[in-house]
Amino acid sequence: MEANRIYNFNPGPATLPLPVLKEAQAEFLNFRGSGMSILEISHRAKEYAAMQAEAKADIKELMGLGDDYEVLFMTGGASTQFAFLPLNFASKEHPGSYVLSGSFAEKAYKEAEHLGIGEIVASSKEGGYRHIPTQDELKIDENAAYVHLCYNNTIYGTEYHYIPDTKGVPLFADMSSDMLSRPIDFSKFDFIYAGVQKNLGPAGVTLVVAKKSFLEKSPEKLPTMFKYETFFKKDSLYNTPPAFNIYMVGKVAAWIKSEGGLAEMAKRNKKKADRLYGVIDASNGFYRGHAEKESRSFMNVTFRLPSEELEKTFVAEALAQGLGGVKGHRSVGGMRASIYNAMTYEGVDKLASFMEDFQKTHA
Amino acid sequence: MEANRIYNFNPGPATLPLPVLKEAQAEFLNFRGSGMSILEISHRAKEYAAMQAEAKADIKELMGLGDDYEVLFMTGGASTQFAFLPLNFASKEHPGSYVLSGSFAEKAYKEAEHLGIGEIVASSKEGGYRHIPTQDELKIDENAAYVHLCYNNTIYGTEYHYIPDTKGVPLFADMSSDMLSRPIDFSKFDFIYAGVQKNLGPAGVTLVVAKKSFLEKSPEKLPTMFKYETFFKKDSLYNTPPAFNIYMVGKVAAWIKSEGGLAEMAKRNKKKADRLYGVIDASNGFYRGHAEKESRSFMNVTFRLPSEELEKTFVAEALAQGLGGVKGHRSVGGMRASIYNAMTYEGVDKLASFMEDFQKTHA
Repeated sequence: MEANRIYNFNPGPATLPLPVLKEAQAEFLNFRGSGMSILEISHRAKEYAAMQAEAKADIKELMGLGDDYEVLFMTGGASTQFAFLPLNFASKEHPGSYVLSGSFAEKAYKEAEHLGIGEIVASSKEGGYRHIPTQDELKIDENAAYVHLCYNNTIYGTEYHYIPDTKGVPLFADMSSDMLSRPIDFSKFDFIYAGVQKNLGPAGVTLVVAKKSFLEKSPEKLPTMFKYETFFKKDSLYNTPPAFNIYMVGKVAAWIKSEGGLAEMAKRNKKKADRLYGVIDASNGFYRGHAEKESRSFMNVTFRLPSEELEKTFVAEALAQGLGGVKGHRSVGGMRASIYNAMTYEGVDKLASFMEDFQKTHA
Repeated sequence: MEANRIYNFNPGPATLPLPVLKEAQAEFLNFRGSGMSILEISHRAKEYAAMQAEAKADIKELMGLGDDYEVLFMTGGASTQFAFLPLNFASKEHPGSYVLSGSFAEKAYKEAEHLGIGEIVASSKEGGYRHIPTQDELKIDENAAYVHLCYNNTIYGTEYHYIPDTKGVPLFADMSSDMLSRPIDFSKFDFIYAGVQKNLGPAGVTLVVAKKSFLEKSPEKLPTMFKYETFFKKDSLYNTPPAFNIYMVGKVAAWIKSEGGLAEMAKRNKKKADRLYGVIDASNGFYRGHAEKESRSFMNVTFRLPSEELEKTFVAEALAQGLGGVKGHRSVGGMRASIYNAMTYEGVDKLASFMEDFQKTHA
């Protein structure tokens, strides 16, 4: 670890690859020889256009997607997509169908429901969102406009380990917290989106990767900036895009490629997750995982300690050892270690060792 | 000028103060001793909270506004505000009233019109938006929800030099291209917004400064992220904000303060504008300004040359001398020198001298 930097286990914004940060820092005053910072250059400049095109191509290559998919760069986060999706695709005749697997899945549903065009396919809310609804639990409405999933649930620490069969209904997914973390057959999804501030870059840009057929025409009645069509037809340049944020996403995508792509990310992420879940499972109940084993997330490891008092001590002592951001979300309590692509095994191993030592001292 | 950097006359994204860029570069890996980059730190962290609060306070102080105003950080640019304004404030009974003074003013109107709740107060479209409509030209509808202005018209190079009397109708303004460029009695406005990528920071955050009475309650029917109320009640932290972009806006605001505030910015901007308009006015018609004199912008100086051939030569020769981004918008043609706060007099003087030399060679 670089001097003065901590291991950052925050859920998002989250740690970014240090080589990417250093590269951006080095070229901060002069982007690609333009004589301008990436913060200053026109989004109509050829240097900008080349960068954005490369970012898009790298993302599609990593996802193994072809010409029938397009990459858009939008803003407003997943929370804004929660409204855009029903506005663009659902109707009273063809509602949006939602699988509730956590807080964000629920928020997505609520926006559709608020518009009177949402319905629930399945929910694991009872019991505190400890598992991902299984295929058997899904009551697919074949008349729905789409089935919407939240593929990884940051707060609860659960993640899909299968791709639901939706009986031909278009499959939409919020992948904000596990996008590009492992190989998935992305071609089974019709519409994927992600706030980038977990695995992909700094907060401020929303990545959309979707079948072109869902992007090329939007309801005429919508305002210009609410239509996917606007972003699709203008290559995300109808108005000024968040250029720096896109540039960073491009750098992170290039870094993932250079490190070995999604297969390598998956290998590393599994190794990191196994290390932490291993400590939890060997702790004789000192650490209690929130997620059921078969739904455990590779990205967010959630667990409780025997008391809230000990949890406070844990957070403080961890930070003193340079392990930051381990406090869990208030709706689950306890701890959460977010171990996205950019978190090193070194950092995870240090946290795991700290957990082992902490148990010895406090059990 | 720093080695390898050009004078950047782009209309936005645009040049930023070099000391601000250098400061951000120096602390890029470690924000306020947190051990994390500003790109990585949680938006719930105390270091982030302090930064955002300082940015808000500095902006309000520069604008001379009190407790009845609030600062919001949103996304989607002015183009998204064009839809949010009528959705939040206008109705068939109380339409949004628009003064058309250029392309963006027109786009703002079109979103309201598309929703069936917009009307036109005045327009200077005839003649190619060469002037700002005067008080006498405004047909105020006293039943309107608001009167909307675009205070500086980037494309046409025109700017308001008076604050319209709206007969008590709330006054709204898009100040994307002249926000914090000079002292204005901002308290006469009820709602001000700005895409920051011209005078205030990198693209990716939209600054809203408005009377609290317009923010504290929004129509219940709107999606969460379309309501100003959501941003107001959660201090712009309902979802993850574009943290880095806000941080840069804060740095630029602090820089403006440290340089002497809006009075000093106005003095510098006037000196820069005078230098360029002086060359145009002394050119015996070689350079022809687009804007009528009384509507000239201090931010964007637009002018034509005798032929399109010469205009092409001008752009190329300027760039060869390190003067970039002087090509005008296609709808006006010719040249546009954008000389926002961060453009130095040195850069403007170099452009002015180049213009004088160019005329001598090519007249």
